[in-house]
Amino acid sequence: MQIHKCLQSNLAVAAMVLSMAVPVAATAQTDTANSETAIITTSRDDGRFLSSRGLAQGLMKAMPPRLAFTDVMTEDSFPAWQQQMEQAMTTLMALPTTPAVAPPRLVKSVERDGYRVEKWESYPFSWAVVPFLVLIPDGVDASAPAPAAMLCIPGFGQTKELLAGEMGGDYDLEQGGNPEAGHAAMARTYAKEGWVAVAVDNPSCGELMDNGKFDYLNTSRVLLEVGWSYLGLSAYQDKLVLDWMKQQSMLDPQRIIVSGFSLGTEPMMALGLMDKDIYAFVYNDFLCTTRERILVMTKPDENGNRPFPNSIEHLIPTFLTLFDFPDIVAALAPRPVICTEGGLDRDFRKISRAYELAGAPEAFEYHHYPRYADPSARQDLETLPEGLNRQEFFNLVNCDSPSHYFKDHLVVPWIHKLLEE
Amino acid sequence: MQIHKCLQSNLAVAAMVLSMAVPVAATAQTDTANSETAIITTSRDDGRFLSSRGLAQGLMKAMPPRLAFTDVMTEDSFPAWQQQMEQAMTTLMALPTTPAVAPPRLVKSVERDGYRVEKWESYPFSWAVVPFLVLIPDGVDASAPAPAAMLCIPGFGQTKELLAGEMGGDYDLEQGGNPEAGHAAMARTYAKEGWVAVAVDNPSCGELMDNGKFDYLNTSRVLLEVGWSYLGLSAYQDKLVLDWMKQQSMLDPQRIIVSGFSLGTEPMMALGLMDKDIYAFVYNDFLCTTRERILVMTKPDENGNRPFPNSIEHLIPTFLTLFDFPDIVAALAPRPVICTEGGLDRDFRKISRAYELAGAPEAFEYHHYPRYADPSARQDLETLPEGLNRQEFFNLVNCDSPSHYFKDHLVVPWIHKLLEE
Repeated sequence: MQIHKCLQSNLAVAAMVLSMAVPVAATAQTDTANSETAIITTSRDDGRFLSSRGLAQGLMKAMPPRLAFTDVMTEDSFPAWQQQMEQAMTTLMALPTTPAVAPPRLVKSVERDGYRVEKWESYPFSWAVVPFLVLIPDGVDASAPAPAAMLCIPGFGQTKELLAGEMGGDYDLEQGGNPEAGHAAMARTYAKEGWVAVAVDNPSCGELMDNGKFDYLNTSRVLLEVGWSYLGLSAYQDKLVLDWMKQQSMLDPQRIIVSGFSLGTEPMMALGLMDKDIYAFVYNDFLCTTRERILVMTKPDENGNRPFPNSIEHLIPTFLTLFDFPDIVAALAPRPVICTEGGLDRDFRKISRAYELAGAPEAFEYHHYPRYADPSARQDLETLPEGLNRQEFFNLVNCDSPSHYFKDHLVVPWIHKLLEE
Repeated sequence: MQIHKCLQSNLAVAAMVLSMAVPVAATAQTDTANSETAIITTSRDDGRFLSSRGLAQGLMKAMPPRLAFTDVMTEDSFPAWQQQMEQAMTTLMALPTTPAVAPPRLVKSVERDGYRVEKWESYPFSWAVVPFLVLIPDGVDASAPAPAAMLCIPGFGQTKELLAGEMGGDYDLEQGGNPEAGHAAMARTYAKEGWVAVAVDNPSCGELMDNGKFDYLNTSRVLLEVGWSYLGLSAYQDKLVLDWMKQQSMLDPQRIIVSGFSLGTEPMMALGLMDKDIYAFVYNDFLCTTRERILVMTKPDENGNRPFPNSIEHLIPTFLTLFDFPDIVAALAPRPVICTEGGLDRDFRKISRAYELAGAPEAFEYHHYPRYADPSARQDLETLPEGLNRQEFFNLVNCDSPSHYFKDHLVVPWIHKLLEE
């Protein structure tokens, strides 16, 4: 099987080319250099690792993303690379290709101030139902379609109700709105701008909980057993809703924007590579190179345990041997993308270059966290040192996690500007 | 890619054939029937699951192992099925096919009562070293080779030193033996019988720890990222040692037995399918159908959390959609296997039938735990009910976990008998 050959081929390369040199970033300011255990090391004279964690670290280093966007890319080679990215993501996500079990069905509608909220159900499998909410501004219908429609994908632990500015918990929309939703009410914010806004749940969360528990790890584990993933299921659920959106006469199918917050940026990017019909993307998180994060976040806690790479909810085997998040955003060019919460300028330069190759440099816009908005306030690193803990990593990549929220003040004007073009 | 097509094809079948009927085992005695939440359920009239855990449960049910040994197997179809099993395991384990970095090297030798312990190093990658211990009975050499040689793979948390009856901790063999090792000293037991015994570490354990931590989850996670697995690495490390054993003139390469305790039965089975040179197998654990265990162990704990399927150390994506442990043992026929700690008679009947098809019914021997040795003391179930916790599962499959230890009193006579044939 192909995946087997890929690994074997990668391992063969690994055995030949691995350099164990620890990347040195001259400007990185951390105290990890003084810690003997912060970096995965060996005390052997031959430099070989006894520890299996060291073996695994070496293996991951030896398998850099095969499809990474690099400086050698040209205008001519860019489209073929995009196609490879699309194919790789299609393989990884493994969305079922069987026809939908049944079309989505409207189950409820409630009026709100200036829009209504409809509750719909989709049916990803014959034994499963996944509800979603649709916010339709007053006056929008087939004869007066909305100028844009937003597919809103929430962050970790958020519900579709929160995004819609509704109360969660009983999921019947009878409680008349959630005054506490604030910035998180991404879909309501969009609806108030006159756009159709659809809010979905991520698997295992909110109404998709089991036994009242947000058991995303258990669900992820079972999905991984059968060769799927939490992200694969998320992308499948969201794709069914996206396809439904394309058929609605109350909106312009050429102006569907996917808006992801935090965890929601992952299915957003997966759908982005796989679905050319999506018009634009709102990426509301810091832009992370996940493979690098795993490799450098090795500083043990007070008990001597190194940080566990992000939870298995984020595990898609071989994903990081193919590409990383900045590569995926680069491959969306020339379609408009806004990144609202910064990251490393290195990664933004990469994406900007992709947009230049695609002939649309203005279609990519990014903003740093306010704390890092001034260039002198942030670090501009090409490489990160190993031996970081989570906070040190965040500091080096300009991530101000306490200010992590939906940046409507950046996104809404950006979308208005897009629609005026 | 193939794995993608497999999942899509499986999902297609799933969408068509899934029956959500809960298996009923008339003889199963548990109190779970009274618990509303023990089973993953839905309160919807259409029977559809809202919970993602229910969706995932349905998906796993819809993807039974494609290569399961079934009643329709005949003498004629058996060899082709064995070949499919071998190919599937080879794909899953993805062992590097590059030549070994360097041959294993002897680094130390100490004398013990009736045998000597040699410490060797193997080099699975250019950046990694994996030591192993070799116990050589006095008088055994190229001119008087041992009648058998055992590759001993430890259980979870055990070290090669424990198996060799040595003290762990500093791994230098200078402490002169471990009087507390008892039954766990599998390799020492074999050496005292006059057989060459090799003891290995499982990844991340003992000398392969990182920063003094048995960090098998962290290592597993990184391996899964690059498309490998803890079991894949275990099998690779053990395979290098096995190949080294075959070249030693102090033993008969036609009489190499792999002896696995608990976790160690997993690489033993993987190697068994992939390496026809192995003469026989000691399976020292209860025989578990892991997929069934995941599907039925759904009873929430006092906090409402369902049991997490066994840790990601055991995760090999798609493994359980291909086969389960009893199928693998069945595919080892006609090579001798002893199972020492019981399980469901259903599974032993399956394996016994495979050995009959292979023309060697006497080559498979199994024993139940003493507590379940009397047929009237154990349950003989064809299916297990959902809604079990771990202890209820163990009770139903005749697993007496407090009596889980290396059953030398069963294994040693069995090997002597084999060697006399």
